[in-house]
Amino acid sequence: MAKIGVILSGCGVFDGSEIHESVLTLLALDQMGASVKIYAPSVPQKHVIDHFRHKVVKGEERNILEESARIARGAIQDITEANMAHLDAIIFPGGAGIAKNLSTFSEKGPQCTLLPAVEDLIADAFRQEKVLGFMCLAPLLAVKAAVNIGRVPLVTLGNDPEMAKAVTMMGGKHTLCPATEVVIDKKNKIVTTPAYMLAKSISEAEVGIGKLVQTVLSMIS
Amino acid sequence: MAKIGVILSGCGVFDGSEIHESVLTLLALDQMGASVKIYAPSVPQKHVIDHFRHKVVKGEERNILEESARIARGAIQDITEANMAHLDAIIFPGGAGIAKNLSTFSEKGPQCTLLPAVEDLIADAFRQEKVLGFMCLAPLLAVKAAVNIGRVPLVTLGNDPEMAKAVTMMGGKHTLCPATEVVIDKKNKIVTTPAYMLAKSISEAEVGIGKLVQTVLSMIS
Repeated sequence: MAKIGVILSGCGVFDGSEIHESVLTLLALDQMGASVKIYAPSVPQKHVIDHFRHKVVKGEERNILEESARIARGAIQDITEANMAHLDAIIFPGGAGIAKNLSTFSEKGPQCTLLPAVEDLIADAFRQEKVLGFMCLAPLLAVKAAVNIGRVPLVTLGNDPEMAKAVTMMGGKHTLCPATEVVIDKKNKIVTTPAYMLAKSISEAEVGIGKLVQTVLSMIS
Repeated sequence: MAKIGVILSGCGVFDGSEIHESVLTLLALDQMGASVKIYAPSVPQKHVIDHFRHKVVKGEERNILEESARIARGAIQDITEANMAHLDAIIFPGGAGIAKNLSTFSEKGPQCTLLPAVEDLIADAFRQEKVLGFMCLAPLLAVKAAVNIGRVPLVTLGNDPEMAKAVTMMGGKHTLCPATEVVIDKKNKIVTTPAYMLAKSISEAEVGIGKLVQTVLSMIS
């Protein structure tokens, strides 16, 4: 049974993990017989967004691990507990939490840094030749962590020219991909899919995410 | 194209809508070609639960509509905007929000009352002979609203003797049902499934929820 870590960044598309992408990832993994552990960092979110009015809620603070625990139904651990020696692959759903909570991309763009525990986990996965899956905005993390250890990763973030440019500026390679397909970087064992960067419906997102999970599982040696 | 209202009660199994059930409902509806509108009441949650430690967070207040908007990716309306004349069916995912936010069941048990906007919407659906779907804890709402207009509804809440007893005490009929099946009350056009009252995995929940959505859609005249 493949052992997969799923890394969350909060609970909500505008300030955390995209909820549909997270749930569809857990669904596909369970349907395909994988064993899943869910992790998130126990640090404050960048901010809290009122998802009804799409506005920052001033003065409110939420913890990424506590909010991610909502998606995990409580079955979640601090990311500092994640150890690539005990995992076959890691998968990152998207959402603004990628750029706001797991990295400083929302403020610094291509000059961003990653949360150290996240960067360490991804770098460990690369070094141990484990498989890595990233959807939506999450490939930004793959690019930064890979380049920082001297690799040139190939990813997709859909078809947004700004995002493609950011990937190139960070030192990675970007390729176009529809929401229902995946991009595979065989050398670095990275699988990416655009999910809600492009998907116009939850069914469309489900197709691409299902393919990502299937591809990640198929690449585990 | 069938027009379905999905009613949420927050964002998280312990203080709002169960997230997996909500997302799997939206997925099945989209896959089966339904048009979906999502609604929630704009009132405070009963309380906020830290889903990592499973403890009440003292002094914190969250609004049901704003939190539900996380699951809806912002595409949500106040439940007072919902009008059964423009909907073919309504579906309620479960989660503790059913007993804590949409009703007073968590405090008062069978003597509970429903949030007036929720009770009015369900009663309108019964009177207009629309189809109603309820999963997990949500059948409690169906029973209370149906009995209050002189009906005797048949539902399932899985196999918990306490919940079966509560249904009977409220004036409804309860029947056992596995997580992968649905119970149909043809006369009152109610479809129920246990979802996470019984499901041991997200895949198992998905089977029952898929059947509920399919059955609801098939019963629309």
